[in-house]
Amino acid sequence: MINKNALATARSSYKPKLPGVLCGNSPIRTSSLKQDGDTEIRALFPMTYDMAPVTFEGDAQTPGTSSPLRIGVILSGGPAPGGHNVIAGLFDAIKQIHSGSTVFGFLNGPDGLLKNKGIELDATTIDRFRNTGGFDIIGSGRTKLESEEDFQKSLATASAQNLTGLVVIGGDDSNSNASKLAEYAKAQGASICIVGVPKTIDGDLKGGGIETSFGFDTACKVYSSLIGNIQRDAISARKYWHFIKLMGRSASHIALECALQTQPNITIISEEVSSRKLTLREIVDGIADTIAYRAANGEQFGSVLIPEGLIEFVPEMGNLISELNELLAAHGEAFNGLSSLPQKREFVSAKLSSPAAALYRNLPDDIANQLILDRDPHGNVQVARIDTQRLLIDLVEAQLKEMKAAGTFKGSFSPLPHYFGYEGRCAAPSNFDADYTYTLGFTAALLLRERLTGYIAAVGGLTRPASEWVAGGIPLARMMNLERRHGKMVPVIKKALVELDSPTFLEFANNRDTWAKSSCYIFAGPIQYFGPSEVCDQTAYTLQLEHAAQAAHSLT
Amino acid sequence: MINKNALATARSSYKPKLPGVLCGNSPIRTSSLKQDGDTEIRALFPMTYDMAPVTFEGDAQTPGTSSPLRIGVILSGGPAPGGHNVIAGLFDAIKQIHSGSTVFGFLNGPDGLLKNKGIELDATTIDRFRNTGGFDIIGSGRTKLESEEDFQKSLATASAQNLTGLVVIGGDDSNSNASKLAEYAKAQGASICIVGVPKTIDGDLKGGGIETSFGFDTACKVYSSLIGNIQRDAISARKYWHFIKLMGRSASHIALECALQTQPNITIISEEVSSRKLTLREIVDGIADTIAYRAANGEQFGSVLIPEGLIEFVPEMGNLISELNELLAAHGEAFNGLSSLPQKREFVSAKLSSPAAALYRNLPDDIANQLILDRDPHGNVQVARIDTQRLLIDLVEAQLKEMKAAGTFKGSFSPLPHYFGYEGRCAAPSNFDADYTYTLGFTAALLLRERLTGYIAAVGGLTRPASEWVAGGIPLARMMNLERRHGKMVPVIKKALVELDSPTFLEFANNRDTWAKSSCYIFAGPIQYFGPSEVCDQTAYTLQLEHAAQAAHSLT
Repeated sequence: MINKNALATARSSYKPKLPGVLCGNSPIRTSSLKQDGDTEIRALFPMTYDMAPVTFEGDAQTPGTSSPLRIGVILSGGPAPGGHNVIAGLFDAIKQIHSGSTVFGFLNGPDGLLKNKGIELDATTIDRFRNTGGFDIIGSGRTKLESEEDFQKSLATASAQNLTGLVVIGGDDSNSNASKLAEYAKAQGASICIVGVPKTIDGDLKGGGIETSFGFDTACKVYSSLIGNIQRDAISARKYWHFIKLMGRSASHIALECALQTQPNITIISEEVSSRKLTLREIVDGIADTIAYRAANGEQFGSVLIPEGLIEFVPEMGNLISELNELLAAHGEAFNGLSSLPQKREFVSAKLSSPAAALYRNLPDDIANQLILDRDPHGNVQVARIDTQRLLIDLVEAQLKEMKAAGTFKGSFSPLPHYFGYEGRCAAPSNFDADYTYTLGFTAALLLRERLTGYIAAVGGLTRPASEWVAGGIPLARMMNLERRHGKMVPVIKKALVELDSPTFLEFANNRDTWAKSSCYIFAGPIQYFGPSEVCDQTAYTLQLEHAAQAAHSLT
Repeated sequence: MINKNALATARSSYKPKLPGVLCGNSPIRTSSLKQDGDTEIRALFPMTYDMAPVTFEGDAQTPGTSSPLRIGVILSGGPAPGGHNVIAGLFDAIKQIHSGSTVFGFLNGPDGLLKNKGIELDATTIDRFRNTGGFDIIGSGRTKLESEEDFQKSLATASAQNLTGLVVIGGDDSNSNASKLAEYAKAQGASICIVGVPKTIDGDLKGGGIETSFGFDTACKVYSSLIGNIQRDAISARKYWHFIKLMGRSASHIALECALQTQPNITIISEEVSSRKLTLREIVDGIADTIAYRAANGEQFGSVLIPEGLIEFVPEMGNLISELNELLAAHGEAFNGLSSLPQKREFVSAKLSSPAAALYRNLPDDIANQLILDRDPHGNVQVARIDTQRLLIDLVEAQLKEMKAAGTFKGSFSPLPHYFGYEGRCAAPSNFDADYTYTLGFTAALLLRERLTGYIAAVGGLTRPASEWVAGGIPLARMMNLERRHGKMVPVIKKALVELDSPTFLEFANNRDTWAKSSCYIFAGPIQYFGPSEVCDQTAYTLQLEHAAQAAHSLT
């Protein structure tokens, strides 16, 4: 049972905007095939590497096929706003292609495909979920399709369900695996076509024709709304420093985008920390200096944005975590036999290298405990569980105490920790994400109509009005890179980290000193669905700045 | 420097709706004076007790005065959405009364009045803050005006500033003190008139003609939006139990209103815990049983709302905290001399009564530490700092472990803690709060035009369209009760706690079993400013249900 309030009811009738090229019969146009590329990757994907990108055109020719499609769909990994609209777009498109087409939703992620567990998605169900957040229409899951056995089971299910196509809605890993499954299926002579859709709030699945992943826009707007409210509180109460950790497993795109939307006093970008090889101490010194500077100006308040993945990007912390992972794997039994936490901490301290041990001993107790207690099923430290915001508060507090004793800080420091993540992953999509996801789903259906496999749906020109967007597909194998995983080289889609020469980072870097010293907060406000276009349809700054830089570049 | 994005710019031109009765010259109508009342309170307020409520009428007679007003204004205590619009309404009204009227804003709360620190608020400044959240136009503060010395200083400032009136925007305490200052001023023959405005997100300043305090509506909508997003995440990821603590110092109005807006699985209401004399163990058992029930149905996820003030309402915890406060006051030096936390915990345990010591020893370490470390300047435990959400998680986890061993819980439990407070106090006001606060400020000005003192601005009929609202004033002294504070009886406005026979609580109580067992979450969505009226102008359920019950009652 799902109950809707007035907003949800009003919003359910929103008609996502489709690009003009998808409003006709949308015949396909194939780009010229590039014969260059990576020989190693080509060797791994002989069936699906030498394919060309395709785009759809809006004129009214006869479509490629008019037989019914039967498409399976999977939601994979962490939820992102707009997932339901991908499925709605897919549904509307296949019904338009042939009224006898059907969509079968696999339950709880790839696991549903392996076990052939799913439900038929009919018009009533689809209508109930239009423009809503969440992945609850069929649930999501983190099972990975990796082994040949997984692929065999997947094809068996596809065959049992008579699927003509499968849409995998997921992040870099899920799309990498979709690519491998497509390659495997084609090599086996299976008729099923497999198409991916770029999803992740983290914003790190982009490049090579993918302009942004869906959900990033909405999640950043939700977080920015909260950061704005907190900053208004900071400047009203004038006595708190807010340390705000933001979700985003590795890359700092979310923190960077939120910084541009809200202009906080301090934003830490993990990629810069890594590139400049900053120590924890140097990060803390930088924060403390800004706090002291502002206090001297009578502003004993402020905001600090911290990307969730930071810890692993601090080289000395990254080393410590690697050493802990290896050490606990090697001595797990002896470690687990110890009864008290201080004993456990002493046990690992004694086995760490000297610099790692020194760092570990200097960490606040609760963080030192989290590092050895919160481990995932593989025994690794769960970095996302570390309260980095509290770690930084503790260390900054200690540093300010020293500065106070030395006379370089005269003021008080009242810190408050926050962590935003689950508040944004399942928000109802912004107009942008509602339109973008619907178009992605629609595009995926057209790719499957064309019997294309091993492609990812790609929608471009995203800073232009939706009517002018372009839509097509990119061969997934062409997005692959070889990376070392668990000791061997495997083909994966590379996570797009924040580039320190990107226009987004430079915009931030050019302004951050001003934002640190004076309080020029932007109070972003909540996502609006019904207002003026400049309020409701604005895309993320990251996208705007990247497009502006590309346009400038193409002019020169 | 304040920067506005497109939403803030669009929103700044919103024209708050005024009731029809305030659109004309609004002559005043005085109700008949009640001669009954509390003799003790009357004795304490001889100058301002025997005054009658007043209302304004909309016909076009000559207003009471047309000489310029000079009004001081104070923002007191924690911020609440709409404070800036109170000042905007005040400003527009006094300019309408006489174009030579002026508003002087005291900086950082009552402290600015004591020290005569403030700024002239001109039209440019006011325009910059229309419809925005926060109290940053002049800042707020928690200084209390309590002593005769405070009152003398206040009158000296009023005289130095040539104030004809003073508006105190605050909660129960600030309005109690405004009442005392008004009484004092009148007794001294000072000409200044003092008027209060009911502010607090907690929703506990109501009754006696005040239907709700401003800010409650917006704050509850912000929290409900976040709770809705988290619940959508819960039902999508299907593996987390979210424990969400909500701001609200004492009363549970916020938790109750958010429960009605979002239909979470479990909501704890402090007043019920107190009334039923529940132990921590009983609360934990209740939560664990629901978790086990849902797990048995394949739903290993859920949501729990926890009011911030809960701890003090659990009788045994309230006792423990009182004992700790007394003990630490008596033995502070010996306690502070101890170096380690375990020593400190042992020290207090040995001095607590036997039941309190047993409870204290069973608390998780971090909570036991918080109880003795985080104390306010008076040496009292800072209840708001206690991570009740983490305390409950720890205790529920332990209980589920026992149930698992006993075979009564078969499932896994992944809890996540959240705390929402600062996210809502300074949000831009909802349409309701924008209109309500503007009308309150406008009303305060008219009361001061009439040279009324010791009144609180009162706007009623709030579930009807704003055009039909009534507006007037209620004598503050009539809202007083005698309460024991620091060992003596003092007159204060009584905090309105959640009544267990109120229509709001009954609505919740009638539905909570269903909400606990099945997942019938409402995903509230963000506050909308531009959409259909049923989306943008809906008032809080608390207000709707109270008005419906009153209407039903008046029919019988």
